[in-house]
Formats: sequence, C-alpha cells, structure tokens
Amino acid sequence: MDSHRFEGAVYARRLGAAASLVARAGLAGLVITPGYDLRYLLGSRADTFERLTALVVPAVGDPAVVLPRLELASLKESAAAELGLDVRDWVDGDDPYRLVSEALGSAPAAVAVTDSMPALHLLPLSHALGVMPVLATDVLRELRMVKEPAEVDALLAAGAAIDRVHARVPSFLAPGRTEADVAADISEAIVAEGHSDVAFVIVGSGPHGADPHHGFSDRQLKAGDIVVVDIGGTYGPGYHSDSTRTYSLGEPNAEVAEQYSILQRAQRTAVETVRPGVTAQQVDAAARDVLASAGLGEYFVHRTGHGIGLCVHEEPYIVAGNELPLATGMAFSIEPGIYFPGRWGARIEDIVVVTEDGALSVNNQPHELTVVPMSSNR
Amino acid sequence: MDSHRFEGAVYARRLGAAASLVARAGLAGLVITPGYDLRYLLGSRADTFERLTALVVPAVGDPAVVLPRLELASLKESAAAELGLDVRDWVDGDDPYRLVSEALGSAPAAVAVTDSMPALHLLPLSHALGVMPVLATDVLRELRMVKEPAEVDALLAAGAAIDRVHARVPSFLAPGRTEADVAADISEAIVAEGHSDVAFVIVGSGPHGADPHHGFSDRQLKAGDIVVVDIGGTYGPGYHSDSTRTYSLGEPNAEVAEQYSILQRAQRTAVETVRPGVTAQQVDAAARDVLASAGLGEYFVHRTGHGIGLCVHEEPYIVAGNELPLATGMAFSIEPGIYFPGRWGARIEDIVVVTEDGALSVNNQPHELTVVPMSSNR
Repeated sequence: MDSHRFEGAVYARRLGAAASLVARAGLAGLVITPGYDLRYLLGSRADTFERLTALVVPAVGDPAVVLPRLELASLKESAAAELGLDVRDWVDGDDPYRLVSEALGSAPAAVAVTDSMPALHLLPLSHALGVMPVLATDVLRELRMVKEPAEVDALLAAGAAIDRVHARVPSFLAPGRTEADVAADISEAIVAEGHSDVAFVIVGSGPHGADPHHGFSDRQLKAGDIVVVDIGGTYGPGYHSDSTRTYSLGEPNAEVAEQYSILQRAQRTAVETVRPGVTAQQVDAAARDVLASAGLGEYFVHRTGHGIGLCVHEEPYIVAGNELPLATGMAFSIEPGIYFPGRWGARIEDIVVVTEDGALSVNNQPHELTVVPMSSNR
Repeated sequence: MDSHRFEGAVYARRLGAAASLVARAGLAGLVITPGYDLRYLLGSRADTFERLTALVVPAVGDPAVVLPRLELASLKESAAAELGLDVRDWVDGDDPYRLVSEALGSAPAAVAVTDSMPALHLLPLSHALGVMPVLATDVLRELRMVKEPAEVDALLAAGAAIDRVHARVPSFLAPGRTEADVAADISEAIVAEGHSDVAFVIVGSGPHGADPHHGFSDRQLKAGDIVVVDIGGTYGPGYHSDSTRTYSLGEPNAEVAEQYSILQRAQRTAVETVRPGVTAQQVDAAARDVLASAGLGEYFVHRTGHGIGLCVHEEPYIVAGNELPLATGMAFSIEPGIYFPGRWGARIEDIVVVTEDGALSVNNQPHELTVVPMSSNR
C-alpha cells in the first residue's frame, strides 16, 4: 500500500456502498471526475482537467474507469489496478462521453456527478446522457460524512500535529516581524510536525484579524496586536487538520479580554451542544445565541463550521437552515469568530468528531487568548 | 497596478467585448466563477469553491460581482473596485443563485458559464435560471484565443525565461542523480529565471520518457539514458511558459539518433505549416504525416499541441478534427513526441504565436537531441 491511500479493500467496500446508495436513489450511476470523491472512492490523486478521466459506478454491474490512454500509467497509484476495475481508455478525437454512457450500461437515465465536475465535462455529458445530472453529494453524503475508524484516526493524528504547531506559534510572534515571516515559520512547522503538505496559513494581525479570509501580508506585528492564526495541513492518506487560535502581543485591554471571553464561551457552548440527533443548525445557533445575547451577534459574520476529511470544507456544514441530525462519526469544525472592521478580530476553532458521549475534540491546545509576553526591557 | 494583473482599462475593454459576443450569441449573459476566465475578465485570482463567487456579464447592462460578504476584501486585488462594478454580497443562508439571476436582469434565458464552473454551482444555477447553460468557451474563445500585444509580450518573456532554464538543464543531468534531484534543481531555476511559480516539471528518463505524462521519480539517471524534460512556469500577470527538450546522457545509438531526427523534422514541419487561415488540424496532420511516413505514426500517441496563456492548456487545441482556421495572435504549443513503451521516448515542444509571416517561436533553444558528454575518465 502506498502511504497516500488505504488498502484496496477499503475502496472495494466504499464502491459497493456507493452503488447501493445510487440504486436506492433510483439513479443509473455515479460519474466521478478527479477531486475528493475520486480520492475517496478510488484513492486516486488524478488531477486532469480538459481530458476526461472518470470513475463510473453503475447502480448495477461493475465500476469502470474511463481515461485518456496517456494517463494509463497513473492508474497504478490508485486502487483501480489492485481491484481489477474495467478500464476504458480513449485517445484525442474519440468521444469519451459515449464511453461513460456505455459504462453506465443502461438506457439514458439520471446520474449523479461529483460536485467538482467542471462545466466543460458536465454539459457534454448531460447531452450524451440526454438528462440533467444531480449532485453526487446528495448520494454520497451519508457515506462521506460518517468517518470510518481509520479516517477518525487520521483526523486525530492530523489534529495532534497541528496542535504541536500552535504550541510553537508564540515563539514566532514578535513586534517587527511581518505576517509573511510568521507564515513562513508556520508552513515549515506544519511539514516538520508530520503533515505532507501545507493546506493554508492565515496570520491576521491587528485590523487584518477582522477579515475572516485574510491570508497574510507584509504588515509588521506590533505590541498590542491581537493575531488570528488559522492553519491546516494534509496528513497521511489525505486527511486535513484545521485549527484556529488567537494570540495577543502583550496583555489585552479590558474590552478585548471581555469580548474574547464571550467568544470562548460561545465556542465551548457549541462544542457541548454536539451529540447524535442534535441538528447542525442547533450547533450553529448555540454559538450564535451566546454572542447575540452579549450584543456581539452582528460581529459573527460566518457559519459556525464545516465538515472536514479529504476536503478541508465538506459536509456537514454547521449553518442556519441545515436540519441534518448529527450522527456518530461525523467530523466538523466549530469556529465562531468576532470581527471589528478596521480594529481587530478573534476566532477559536477545533475539529470535533461526534461520539455517543458527545464531541471528541481532535484539537486540544488551550482555548484562552494566548498572551505573548512583551518584555519591557528590550 | 499590482504586477499580477494589467491596468483597469484592459479589463474594461475585455468586459465590453465579452458583452458584445454574448449579445451576438443570443444569450442573456455570462456567469464566471473563479478560474482562468475570471482572471482574464477581471484580473482576479479568487479561488473560492463551495461559496459562490461569480462575475455576471449581462448582454445588456452593467456587469456585477456576486460574492460572499466575507470575501469583500478580496475585491481589492481584482479590477472590480477600480472599475466600480456593481457588487452584490451575500451571507450564509442567502440564495446566491437568485442574486445571479437578478444581476442578469432578464427573464430566464440561456447563459454561458465558465468551463471550470463546478457542478456544485452549475446545477443549482441552471435550476434557478430554468435553462441549461452553455460553455462560455464557445463565446469567449475568439476573445481569449487571440492574444493582445501585452499578452504576446508576456508569453515572449515567459518563453525566454524557460529557455534560460533549458540552457542550464545539461548541468543538472548526471549518472546517479535521481529524476527528483534534477526536478528540484529545475524548479529552483524556473523561479530564479523570473517566473513567479513553477507550473509543472517532467523529467522522464530512460523508460519513463515513454510515458508522456510521467512527472518525476526516484529513478537514478545512468549513462545512455534519453531524458525528456518538459517544464513550465507562471510569469508576470499569469501567463505561462511550456517547453520540452530531450537530452541524451552520452552519444545516442544510431537507432535513437535516426528516430529523433525524424521527430525533429516532424516538429519543424508543423511549425512551418503555421500561418493565418491554415486549420488547427492541418498543423496536427503536418507533424503526424512526417512520423507516419517514417513508420513512427503509432508511437505518437497524443495531439500535436494546445493553446496557452493564463491557462497552460486552453484553446486552440492542435488536434485532428479541429477545423478552426488559425488567426494572427493565436498562441499554442507544437510538441510531437515518440514513445516506445519500456524503452525510451522523446518530445520537442515550442510555443508559437501566429503572425502574418507564419509562426513566431517564443522558444529558441536548439531543437537537436542535446548530448550531455559522459567523461570517460571519471
């Protein structure tokens, strides 16, 4: 087994489960182009774009892989060869959408396609099939959302690795250093602590912390800054870490300290709300209500969280309107934040896994605003 | 102006031209999510996925940007702010597809969507509009395929930079070094020679050269190897270099030398075929015919080339069946190859721009098989 995927039996089981879900949904099959679903179902990291590569999982019958002949060698890294899947290769000039249609082995009928299938393939495919596809997420959701024990292990290992990075962050923060300097140190630490890749690094200092999607910049840190550090990497067979902590260069003023403590209570309350049967939107509301009752509701401008696994952002989304009941094995972030434009921001984020006993947090660094001492005599 | 994009007037002109093409095609408008078309039309490098960001260019009326409120700050880096585009932001829980529909400002009618729009957005958008979109490529093709002088300048600069890298490649090749060692040196050189990023590095030595899409591996080079080196980077405002040369560690044997010389003739013949009015498939056939008449046709397993610009692979594709007549300003690769599975392979690739006088090659390293001398006394 390559370290970037599980053994073949894992994918055989997933392909079987996917076919059952497809049949139950009354669809002819799944068509999966490169992306997270392909990695989930086949352990493939293919990333072709304009030439169609697709895994076809019919509701009845054997899965097949349609791919350009010049990508045949790439099959070795996926589980396709190990599982002996039917391979239908094509060369420039052939019609690969007809091959997909044939691999589905039935009269034109609705299929489900992966979320990331680009219009470039989706539109000709729907013409070839004569019907408009639906999203595979609607079929695969219950499969991908509920993590298998090996996946939970990967998320725990990734979480422990990013915790070790956060433990080192205070040593990277000093007045005069730029956000980019800090981000470079963090990127190095993310890999040094065991990730295969850096997924993202946000270092939002001072007013930049008020932009939830700020990356990093050449702004120099200065004493008194509040710094939002939201970081993650890819671990083992492709699972992700994602954790945010907020740091203060020197003691925060009373207003910051008080508002941060309310945020911390909002985050903890949301975590404590997690248990099987509670809906995603109830978890979102738990965090939101704490902030709203303290008059901070308008400063919390995003959803409370997102699922995580092979994709940094995936189902279940912890957001108003999502009535999905949580189930054991689901994994997602709980990351309320408060943002004061032009001034400062703060966010606290853990990845949690739903267990019978409630939330198991894969991140365990202290949740308090971490004060980086500003030595008075330097 | 940021160095990663042109000034606002360039995008204003492109947006106007796009609206005219949309109107002429009888469509209600364009809907462009993050990707190359968005970079082309707005100079934006946004890369949001599950939350909809879209540029809406109606056939009649002003363009608008629909984006998540938490991405508002990212508008600054694109030309949207400079051009004063209408901005319609949304928050989690809103229906962004309705905002797109409103920005189109008309009763439901067909729209064109960017090739890279993921199914996740395309399917709900088509439901919101009540019609199946078409590909924006069919509308934007003539705009994006024909490079403006500033774009040709960027391609020439990128080409000169990758030529400088190829000039250094022989010094990276030595028996005992792995393909990965060589690739690391090349990546460093790609950036050192002026690219902002490495786009791809292929080092296919010995039997690996017979796989056109091999990346690089831990295989050690050895005397006698033929090595295919296909490399490219991103330059200036996002334009790409892409050039392949083939190297021989020591003098090649007579069979290799002869077959390579036929490949070289095929590549040169295809370049010489280029002029306005000739079709894309005629250029493909020119290379293919030379190889076929020498009995090598079956070893040339891919198309002859692809357009290049903001995307490494874009229109026009130089492939059988493409009856597109070439026009002044089009830019594409000419890269025939021969591949002998399990043994060796070779490829020669230049990017050329169509001028009134024929092909202007942006790559000008020697096309011969470059022999890296194997000193007999070391």
